[in-house]
Amino acid sequence: MHTPPHPRTGVWLIGARGSVATTAIAGAAALRTGAPATAMVTEAPGFPADGLPRTADLVFGGHDIAHTTLAKRAEQLAAAGVLPAGLPDRVRAELDAADARIRPGVPQGHGSEHPADGLRRLAADIAAFRTEERLDRVVVVNVADTEAPAPARAETEGLDALTAALESGAHVLPASSRYAHAAFTAGCAYVNFTPSAGARPPAIAELAARTRLPYAGDDGKTGETLLKSVLAPMFGHRHLRVRSWAGTNLLGGGDGANLADPAVARSKLDSKSRLVGELLGYPVDDHLHIDHVADLAERKVAWDHVTFDGFLGAQMSLQFTWQGYDSALAAPLVLDLARLMARAHETGRSGPVTELAFFFKDPLDCAVHDLPGQHAMLLAFAERLRRAGGPA
Amino acid sequence: MHTPPHPRTGVWLIGARGSVATTAIAGAAALRTGAPATAMVTEAPGFPADGLPRTADLVFGGHDIAHTTLAKRAEQLAAAGVLPAGLPDRVRAELDAADARIRPGVPQGHGSEHPADGLRRLAADIAAFRTEERLDRVVVVNVADTEAPAPARAETEGLDALTAALESGAHVLPASSRYAHAAFTAGCAYVNFTPSAGARPPAIAELAARTRLPYAGDDGKTGETLLKSVLAPMFGHRHLRVRSWAGTNLLGGGDGANLADPAVARSKLDSKSRLVGELLGYPVDDHLHIDHVADLAERKVAWDHVTFDGFLGAQMSLQFTWQGYDSALAAPLVLDLARLMARAHETGRSGPVTELAFFFKDPLDCAVHDLPGQHAMLLAFAERLRRAGGPA
Amino acid sequence: MHTPPHPRTGVWLIGARGSVATTAIAGAAALRTGAPATAMVTEAPGFPADGLPRTADLVFGGHDIAHTTLAKRAEQLAAAGVLPAGLPDRVRAELDAADARIRPGVPQGHGSEHPADGLRRLAADIAAFRTEERLDRVVVVNVADTEAPAPARAETEGLDALTAALESGAHVLPASSRYAHAAFTAGCAYVNFTPSAGARPPAIAELAARTRLPYAGDDGKTGETLLKSVLAPMFGHRHLRVRSWAGTNLLGGGDGANLADPAVARSKLDSKSRLVGELLGYPVDDHLHIDHVADLAERKVAWDHVTFDGFLGAQMSLQFTWQGYDSALAAPLVLDLARLMARAHETGRSGPVTELAFFFKDPLDCAVHDLPGQHAMLLAFAERLRRAGGPA
Amino acid sequence: MHTPPHPRTGVWLIGARGSVATTAIAGAAALRTGAPATAMVTEAPGFPADGLPRTADLVFGGHDIAHTTLAKRAEQLAAAGVLPAGLPDRVRAELDAADARIRPGVPQGHGSEHPADGLRRLAADIAAFRTEERLDRVVVVNVADTEAPAPARAETEGLDALTAALESGAHVLPASSRYAHAAFTAGCAYVNFTPSAGARPPAIAELAARTRLPYAGDDGKTGETLLKSVLAPMFGHRHLRVRSWAGTNLLGGGDGANLADPAVARSKLDSKSRLVGELLGYPVDDHLHIDHVADLAERKVAWDHVTFDGFLGAQMSLQFTWQGYDSALAAPLVLDLARLMARAHETGRSGPVTELAFFFKDPLDCAVHDLPGQHAMLLAFAERLRRAGGPA
Repeated sequence: MHTPPHPRTGVWLIGARGSVATTAIAGAAALRTGAPATAMVTEAPGFPADGLPRTADLVFGGHDIAHTTLAKRAEQLAAAGVLPAGLPDRVRAELDAADARIRPGVPQGHGSEHPADGLRRLAADIAAFRTEERLDRVVVVNVADTEAPAPARAETEGLDALTAALESGAHVLPASSRYAHAAFTAGCAYVNFTPSAGARPPAIAELAARTRLPYAGDDGKTGETLLKSVLAPMFGHRHLRVRSWAGTNLLGGGDGANLADPAVARSKLDSKSRLVGELLGYPVDDHLHIDHVADLAERKVAWDHVTFDGFLGAQMSLQFTWQGYDSALAAPLVLDLARLMARAHETGRSGPVTELAFFFKDPLDCAVHDLPGQHAMLLAFAERLRRAGGPA
Repeated sequence: MHTPPHPRTGVWLIGARGSVATTAIAGAAALRTGAPATAMVTEAPGFPADGLPRTADLVFGGHDIAHTTLAKRAEQLAAAGVLPAGLPDRVRAELDAADARIRPGVPQGHGSEHPADGLRRLAADIAAFRTEERLDRVVVVNVADTEAPAPARAETEGLDALTAALESGAHVLPASSRYAHAAFTAGCAYVNFTPSAGARPPAIAELAARTRLPYAGDDGKTGETLLKSVLAPMFGHRHLRVRSWAGTNLLGGGDGANLADPAVARSKLDSKSRLVGELLGYPVDDHLHIDHVADLAERKVAWDHVTFDGFLGAQMSLQFTWQGYDSALAAPLVLDLARLMARAHETGRSGPVTELAFFFKDPLDCAVHDLPGQHAMLLAFAERLRRAGGPA
Repeated sequence: MHTPPHPRTGVWLIGARGSVATTAIAGAAALRTGAPATAMVTEAPGFPADGLPRTADLVFGGHDIAHTTLAKRAEQLAAAGVLPAGLPDRVRAELDAADARIRPGVPQGHGSEHPADGLRRLAADIAAFRTEERLDRVVVVNVADTEAPAPARAETEGLDALTAALESGAHVLPASSRYAHAAFTAGCAYVNFTPSAGARPPAIAELAARTRLPYAGDDGKTGETLLKSVLAPMFGHRHLRVRSWAGTNLLGGGDGANLADPAVARSKLDSKSRLVGELLGYPVDDHLHIDHVADLAERKVAWDHVTFDGFLGAQMSLQFTWQGYDSALAAPLVLDLARLMARAHETGRSGPVTELAFFFKDPLDCAVHDLPGQHAMLLAFAERLRRAGGPA
Repeated sequence: MHTPPHPRTGVWLIGARGSVATTAIAGAAALRTGAPATAMVTEAPGFPADGLPRTADLVFGGHDIAHTTLAKRAEQLAAAGVLPAGLPDRVRAELDAADARIRPGVPQGHGSEHPADGLRRLAADIAAFRTEERLDRVVVVNVADTEAPAPARAETEGLDALTAALESGAHVLPASSRYAHAAFTAGCAYVNFTPSAGARPPAIAELAARTRLPYAGDDGKTGETLLKSVLAPMFGHRHLRVRSWAGTNLLGGGDGANLADPAVARSKLDSKSRLVGELLGYPVDDHLHIDHVADLAERKVAWDHVTFDGFLGAQMSLQFTWQGYDSALAAPLVLDLARLMARAHETGRSGPVTELAFFFKDPLDCAVHDLPGQHAMLLAFAERLRRAGGPA
């Protein structure tokens, strides 16, 4: 049996057959064969990573409603330039093993299942993964398609009301929150890498508190917002007055198609648009669009145009164009978060892990919005984890 | 203890009739009439500015070899969009007063003057300014045209050798260093806002040490480099591997025309190109061009194109276009530096003031290259100045 | 009485106190003082302009519901960079004279006036202008704010039905069509420089036919669409396959504020989005946004991103950013159109003048969409006008 | 009348193992298997291609001094995104067959061979290709690395002087002109797809005239210049005054490395920089840079920044960024030119074929510089070829 210092860690991915999940699984396998860990923050030189589970040792499973296998998805990602040509073949065994551990998820709408039964099924899947793979702990990470914003409702304001509603057969939780509920029920840490509701409804946060489990989110910061988090402070430090910030995001592939639904896009836009004003401390005229451009496939292109005043009101501007692969930006952060949250769980941490704001567009309960400040906070957190003892 | 709350502070500008100087002088006058101090870092909300001389109280003079009056230059800057329409008229009295205090400078080449006589004349001009305007102290700031790089020579390696050479009639100092020499001889703090040699020759630094005077530089950070100083750390923090960084700068007006001389441009390019590799800790394939585009007048446009690797080597890119008015970016920093250096001088500080790296492309003796780190260092320095006592 | 070669020509502007109208009036006056006629196509070297009324001789009047004087508006335009500093003062007399000829317009909604009375009043205003200024003819040009698209209705399908409806007191015509009706009733040529309905309702076109008057439109081509009209043919000529074309337009000032209303923007977007597919002959995935960014004042910025396939499907892209002053782009074309339409009217031309497609985003009844083809068509038309005799 | 419907046509590529040649050979083979002929102008719908040899029937050979096989090079191009994944395998037989027909070329410098012997060897290689492959005719196309500009010298001013010099053992011809000499000696049409000297020296042009053979060039128009050829006319047609045009080209791969040599880049820059002024008819302040950015591999990125005046001098700008694969842009044009020149030769055409200006940055003896005009000229030429009879 496995004894510390190498606890076995599982990563349970919601949306396990999507681009981000596939890239994360294939990437962890690639690291085993010596690929450089570029873009993984916890693998950067000097990062205090002692005590974190090794990336190459992570064991993957998850929920999905899609049936395209990981091996097939990896081939598509290689053709699109996200994965290196040849990698899908080289890590075929790992992809197939993870694919065999994927269980049917729940749809975004209600489905026919009784809601309480559905939650029990999801939690049982995760617990079975932990048992069967002899894992010390599991981190559940939501990388599924973004949901439309869920209106607040009385039944999700407290855990007792929620439990009663669910048992009565009422469908009151969005899918992302059902998975968060299942994660906590199964005794797992939870990460929301999307802007969906996840653990935000008060009843779910209450469940996390009762089960003494940690969670982190929301919405991985992988492009335009990453740039905002360094450029807005630059304007602030130089006392340059930002007048307007207009952005257009062109997204290909699944993420783009999903966000082409205006209701869904609203979640994303809400999570993106608050930042500049919060960083600068005054309101900024902001505009933000998300377009689905199928031809971009796995790529995304963001163009931002910023107007600002200099000395004596001189009018100036900055434009930038960011061109990247969403999955290649997101997947390494998913692996970082799995490592950090597994260790946070191990040290007994519970509730929102605000020190991980570095990774998120819309960090939970955190007032630090500038990237360098968030990075310093992350390093200090990792250092504390390093010095902490073993399992609580 | 620091008694006179309002020591009188002079600012002696080398290149006093250029765009940056004119904008600084007109801007300080505009602040007196209630204009917002946008882009002045020391006037930002929360900046610990107690003890600094008030911007509106600064008294201006300087050296120049040009004859266009400040009033005329201000009209041109207003037509070009740098100054608000109408401002030159409103601050005409202040412009004329400063113009009357401008003394003939020295040319970039040798001229006919005996070099030792020339230095004495420059120092006497600065000292006379201090006496006539009843100033407590004067900060000399170099905002003249950039010089071509000066080759190292034995005579400038030590102060005694330099003095001997100068007295013998040898022309061994570039113009910018002659002004620095005069500043220290006259007992003044010195700021080099250009990439010219200024106080860098060892003999000049030795003179600063002997006279126990502070100095700061080199080369104000006003555009492309400002962006590099926040974007390169962003790539570093995310462990994204930067592969290439190519930039093109289009400059109008005097600065552009001057930099159209390849020898002169070399100074600027050297000062700009080291940064990214230093920030990231590994070599980056960098390319940098400066073009003089007369039609841009007072504007500058910088386009940078960055390629970087993400997870598993996925190839991505960032482009930005920065469009601004060089003088409107530089002038407020000149005022900031005058305030900070006057106070540093007052508190007895001498030698290179490395804490001001925030303002410079190529900061003296400073290993902090990221803007947020430099800003934190600046705030701590300003706080120390605030707490320090009065004149040493 | 009219004798060649100097018929007196009036230009009656709908929206006569807006930015475009003010720029056109100030510009025509500036030409009188020797300013170069940059951006006027009919003033370009080699253009067959013989027989066209001289730009400097045009007499201006118009309708507007705004009260800001032309002199005041011109000052604002000079401050924003559209007009040269000093020009408003130099052409003050011409601005005041034109301003005195502006009559109250009709609101976009119904207003309290009986619709038939309103039309008679508008037509009488235009006829009075012709008489009082002893003009040989008048061209009415719509440069008013864009309207929301008007739904088709039975009463505007034929002139008799329309007349009956109007006399019965029914409000069935959008404002832009009321002005077109008045123009034709007053015996004037009509140009629709906006995407509003103008002369498009069949009843209005029928009125033009009955009165044997010429008209042209719709929607001046001043930026993004201008570029599309040369770039799309380039892709076509090279047999490169355009896959997507996404554009974002940032508009300041009045035009932007007006288009911030989604219903109004729809008119503009409809007029802009058809072009690429028509030029290329196959459907293109297009996306188009218009944002009102108040800080841009009179400027507009368009960013377009095009993806296309090369040989064997190689994926490539083109981006462009167009930064200009909308009024400075539109006003010279308004003057061109006034000259050309006055002459077309003089030679007896009636109905839609399809040869002027060069000037419009959405040209009437014209299958030539590429700019060079439209320019050739324009030159041939001007040549025919030149050769035509005097008044029909 | 044109009887044999299928004359056999060979394409002899100078630089036959380079990226452009490999892409052309692999692409022609791909067309045989039904790939769409995107980016081939002669394969566009409606192009009058009757009488041209079929692309899929072209037979390839060539000279090169490199030893990397076509199969290997194709693999590299597929990995870089130029060729579709899997294509190199599918067309392996065609690549190997062409590779077997490649003969050793001559170096850019002198080499040890007697110059007259060298020329005879090159011509014999080409003639042998024609004989062995039973070809009706061969078109020689230069797609080798760009040479540094060759100074004019007396020996290349006339054919007799050249012949005498060569026989005397003098090395007076740059490599590109040696290949052109060999092409004409062997009785073949010649295309210079690079800015190297090729057929430009008067002695070589005289040889073409004496042998009654056609030639075309110079320098394929594949990116920035293509855009200039439509954008500059747009400014002209609108009477907008272009003030400056600054461009930066970032090139990866072999082309970029070659052009990193400033002497070589000069050839390219000369060929690129004349265009805008010629199109507009007045001088424009232009700036142009070429950088080798190895990380771009087979990609190139061009950024252009244009300033222009609108009405009354209003200052505006246009920027564009073109991102493409040089080989995927060039190769289809090489195939187009081979087809057109083979047919031109067949119909008895000799001397410079100026009607092909559409394809070139720096077209021979042609005053039509705008792309639509060149396209019209090309269509008319193709139509004439279609109607012409058979072999002369």
